[in-house]
Amino acid sequence: MRNGFFITMEGGEGAGKTSAIRAIIEQVTERGYEAVSTREPGGIPIAEQIRSVILDKGNTAMDGRTEALLYAAARRQHLAEKVIPALQAGKVVVCDRFIDSSLAYQGYARGLGMDEVWAVNRFAIGDWMPDLTIYMDVRPEIGLARIRADQGREVNRLDLESLDFHEKVREGYARVMSMFPERVIRVDAEKKLETVLEQIKEILNQSLLRRV
Amino acid sequence: MRNGFFITMEGGEGAGKTSAIRAIIEQVTERGYEAVSTREPGGIPIAEQIRSVILDKGNTAMDGRTEALLYAAARRQHLAEKVIPALQAGKVVVCDRFIDSSLAYQGYARGLGMDEVWAVNRFAIGDWMPDLTIYMDVRPEIGLARIRADQGREVNRLDLESLDFHEKVREGYARVMSMFPERVIRVDAEKKLETVLEQIKEILNQSLLRRV
Repeated sequence: MRNGFFITMEGGEGAGKTSAIRAIIEQVTERGYEAVSTREPGGIPIAEQIRSVILDKGNTAMDGRTEALLYAAARRQHLAEKVIPALQAGKVVVCDRFIDSSLAYQGYARGLGMDEVWAVNRFAIGDWMPDLTIYMDVRPEIGLARIRADQGREVNRLDLESLDFHEKVREGYARVMSMFPERVIRVDAEKKLETVLEQIKEILNQSLLRRV
Repeated sequence: MRNGFFITMEGGEGAGKTSAIRAIIEQVTERGYEAVSTREPGGIPIAEQIRSVILDKGNTAMDGRTEALLYAAARRQHLAEKVIPALQAGKVVVCDRFIDSSLAYQGYARGLGMDEVWAVNRFAIGDWMPDLTIYMDVRPEIGLARIRADQGREVNRLDLESLDFHEKVREGYARVMSMFPERVIRVDAEKKLETVLEQIKEILNQSLLRRV
């Protein structure tokens, strides 16, 4: 039933996920797999509707737990309509952010509680946890400086939060790694892009050889 | 912080919840409490928006888990904006259906799993579980016959589901009672209305004396 391979990419702002995803898709395609790159809500109408409730500027009264449940609902629908069918068709799916973003940002940095956010997401994800998660670790001051230096990349709301908040996100990711040591592999994303991509290539070689 | 009293009313179709809620509000008000009667989404705009995503006829692709997460999100927002402030103001809140409906209908009758639905709802509810839940128990064939006989009451989608489904809902409620024996009190709702209301009055007297 599950013949594909599900990879998720995680990391703070400016970690270089976009370049890494492009390189992974190229590598996987060269090896003869069909590859799909996605991120929530990923063009799935129900997930887009849910996101628009979350992002509605009029919804200032939205409770933190309501928001976490809505993110989990959008996650489930994107998974059900896009990720699961691709995995069942034997494809490699690369998803830009998934459960670990919720754990690090909402569970830890925003203080909702990692156990609580994990319980909700476990329900949303069911049997479809990622096979491999690559965590691109970068200190916030480095990541944010990269974003500022990069003319082609717009600074978004999360980029602009205080450095303190991004430090907490990084602490959250450190906890995620200790919660899921087998699934999550850390890459030092402060290294040169070439070195980072080389390391990711090696991780992928080992994982795909082992698991597909 | 929590000075009010939170009552939820549960039961299958045609159990007589509406009459019971009216009687409870009267009784509580006579005793000098301020009382609020509500049901989700209860006029809370964010909860209404979430409900409209659930009920959108175009959303035929909606996954069962997405739906359960959206119901939990609407529950949280209604709780945060309407129930919690009323309880904090010392009021008695009577809510028509709450967590146990999700457990019986979605968790058990629709087969999502009671433990799973409970985990999601525990997150949605946090520290605000009901103080008292009155479960109005009626065999489905009796409840549905009442609805058909009652000209003033429109038959809705759930009313029209098969008798088998309503039997499963009732089994689900039986399990809810064994999960929460201290909170949930069963009333035999097949008795005459007068008798049922008398029994509810007695339950309320004991609970309010004990807990407020």
